[in-house]
Amino acid sequence: MRDVAIVAAGQSEFGEFPQKSIKEIFAEAFDDMKSSLAGALDPSVIEAAYVGTLGVGGFQLGQPGPLLAKHVGLGNIPVTRVENACASGGFALLSAVLAVGSGQYDVVLAAGVEKMRDTSAMQGRYWLGVSGDTEYERLAGLTFAGIYAVMASRYMHDYHVPKKYLSMVAVKNHSHGALNPKAHFQRKITLEQAMGAANVAYPLNLFDCSPTSDGAAAVLVTSLERAREFTPSPVKVLGFGAGTDYLAIHERRSITGLEAARIAATKAFAMAGISPSDIDVAEVHDCFTIAEIMAYEDIGFAGRGEGWKLLEAGETTLGGRMPVNPSGGLKAKGHPLGATGIAQAVEIFNQLRGKAGKRQVAGARFGLTHNVGGSGGAATVFIFGIDA
Amino acid sequence: MRDVAIVAAGQSEFGEFPQKSIKEIFAEAFDDMKSSLAGALDPSVIEAAYVGTLGVGGFQLGQPGPLLAKHVGLGNIPVTRVENACASGGFALLSAVLAVGSGQYDVVLAAGVEKMRDTSAMQGRYWLGVSGDTEYERLAGLTFAGIYAVMASRYMHDYHVPKKYLSMVAVKNHSHGALNPKAHFQRKITLEQAMGAANVAYPLNLFDCSPTSDGAAAVLVTSLERAREFTPSPVKVLGFGAGTDYLAIHERRSITGLEAARIAATKAFAMAGISPSDIDVAEVHDCFTIAEIMAYEDIGFAGRGEGWKLLEAGETTLGGRMPVNPSGGLKAKGHPLGATGIAQAVEIFNQLRGKAGKRQVAGARFGLTHNVGGSGGAATVFIFGIDA
Repeated sequence: MRDVAIVAAGQSEFGEFPQKSIKEIFAEAFDDMKSSLAGALDPSVIEAAYVGTLGVGGFQLGQPGPLLAKHVGLGNIPVTRVENACASGGFALLSAVLAVGSGQYDVVLAAGVEKMRDTSAMQGRYWLGVSGDTEYERLAGLTFAGIYAVMASRYMHDYHVPKKYLSMVAVKNHSHGALNPKAHFQRKITLEQAMGAANVAYPLNLFDCSPTSDGAAAVLVTSLERAREFTPSPVKVLGFGAGTDYLAIHERRSITGLEAARIAATKAFAMAGISPSDIDVAEVHDCFTIAEIMAYEDIGFAGRGEGWKLLEAGETTLGGRMPVNPSGGLKAKGHPLGATGIAQAVEIFNQLRGKAGKRQVAGARFGLTHNVGGSGGAATVFIFGIDA
Repeated sequence: MRDVAIVAAGQSEFGEFPQKSIKEIFAEAFDDMKSSLAGALDPSVIEAAYVGTLGVGGFQLGQPGPLLAKHVGLGNIPVTRVENACASGGFALLSAVLAVGSGQYDVVLAAGVEKMRDTSAMQGRYWLGVSGDTEYERLAGLTFAGIYAVMASRYMHDYHVPKKYLSMVAVKNHSHGALNPKAHFQRKITLEQAMGAANVAYPLNLFDCSPTSDGAAAVLVTSLERAREFTPSPVKVLGFGAGTDYLAIHERRSITGLEAARIAATKAFAMAGISPSDIDVAEVHDCFTIAEIMAYEDIGFAGRGEGWKLLEAGETTLGGRMPVNPSGGLKAKGHPLGATGIAQAVEIFNQLRGKAGKRQVAGARFGLTHNVGGSGGAATVFIFGIDA
């Protein structure tokens, strides 16, 4: 496959915006992406688009892709909606990378969007179990937080990990989110607050759970050959991988890690020709605090059962050896499902170009994104580097 | 982009199957696809999969792709759900073709599925307007049949076309469906029956509307280079194109044709290097009878405002110059939304290999599929030929 790069990236504010329609939120991300370019972007150069969204709330049950693409002024180009639960954004990016990689298109938009905060209670019940297995989990009453609670319980039991370490993920990511003017939550929390919050699904409490958010994100993917028509500092896609697993967790080999993410990471590192220790900054899928700890292990930042130790040493905090979720992650930046995988790429794009403001990881050369669908039914991992 | 072929194709029965789960219907198509191969298929050779579905009825709100892929025994490969309303299947095929075209994967599954016949009334109301613009059409009370009724009225007015010609599409496609043992409706109807049926949305009556159906379809896409590992007679993808338009029909330049389909067809013919008159057999998106007449014109089989004349001459009937919808089309074969675009490719695959049974178009060398999303918000066109 030919080389592919990201040349522009942007996102809307993440949060609760009853005054903004989903079209406006999408356009906000698209415009922010355009403003990351030195010059103007003529939308007619975009030859295809992929939009990741679950369409929570049913704002447009079919064809949200064309609807949103036409709203931001794209031509009558192929627009495909891609859905893989909370990894919809990652799979939209994967589709865009393959489309450019094929040589069929040179300039492709990958975007994601979700508007979750004005969903009715009826719809809410319906989609809260969106990403569990309908037959074995959702209809049986297992909530989505409940699924991750089962994983957390097993992880804490198997590896003798106190609850404190889950809370440390929340504290870290809130401290990062406080530096991100587009984050849903821009305030720090203490370990005491994190540990003492109201229970959701034991051992997960309120601060172990990412919020539901409104938001969108967008990146422009081009062939590396044409990237410098758009920017002097493109971010190259060095490697990528995607994996799948059974949706129902009882069918999996293990529930203290996500096989789909392990497969995705292994493929991405093999393609990039680098190893986990080369990564300078990562955005990982911390839909629940336990998920970030499992991510450390699935990606290879830590050995099996040892991810939580990175937190104690502060290695993944800004200023540490390898900051994870400098954006605030899903926990503090917010988690508008379809937008998340794209927004992770936006953060890494900015980090690698030295444009991440107060949360800049100094001298970051290699960045990684890790986006999980549901409870691990699917995952994507991308590795990026500045093209020097 | 490197050359790509279809090496296996199959579909489930289309119809009403309360006794079969969506997983079973999907597996039926997958197994039928396998049986089109001379030898056995080891599912582990499949490197990625794309599943087109709207998920009507919410059988699995997120991640139906991984769920269905694991059910038929695929490995933990990347599986992406693709949605573009009734063109979900066509866009799943497009994604698979690009994925193989990129060189990243050699063997990719493209499939589609829908289970529409056991949907509750509440859900039914919700998704019946699935493919219209939610703000301007669905919430305003315009049904999906209503949208096509507006188009039909305008077409009949502009080109002075009597209602009879709409009904002739239904008569033709029912006569073809009577020859297809997997069709939802396998009986002929008379012109009198077609014209005298109960009104749905004037000028469209019951026989102008395709049914809601349960069904699935699957094709195996490989690089042309590797195609003969699977079959001595692969069907080559000669050309493809996809287009988009505003969802809301009041925003379009014209409503007597679909711009998205015109764009898709123009691109597909340019890529294939042949012209509409070279096509021997076509499967077009006759969700309503008017849609088939517009398809003739959008593809280029007839001039603007002259598509209906092909019906009078019997040119698109089996035995005519260029049979259209020998499978029975959406009207008689059935229209399980996400499966339709793939099922069209299944029919052309069989036609080009001389395996279409009683509805075989003798000596067919070039075949075309035309799949429309919603009322024309998106469309794909593929042109296929036997690789000799």
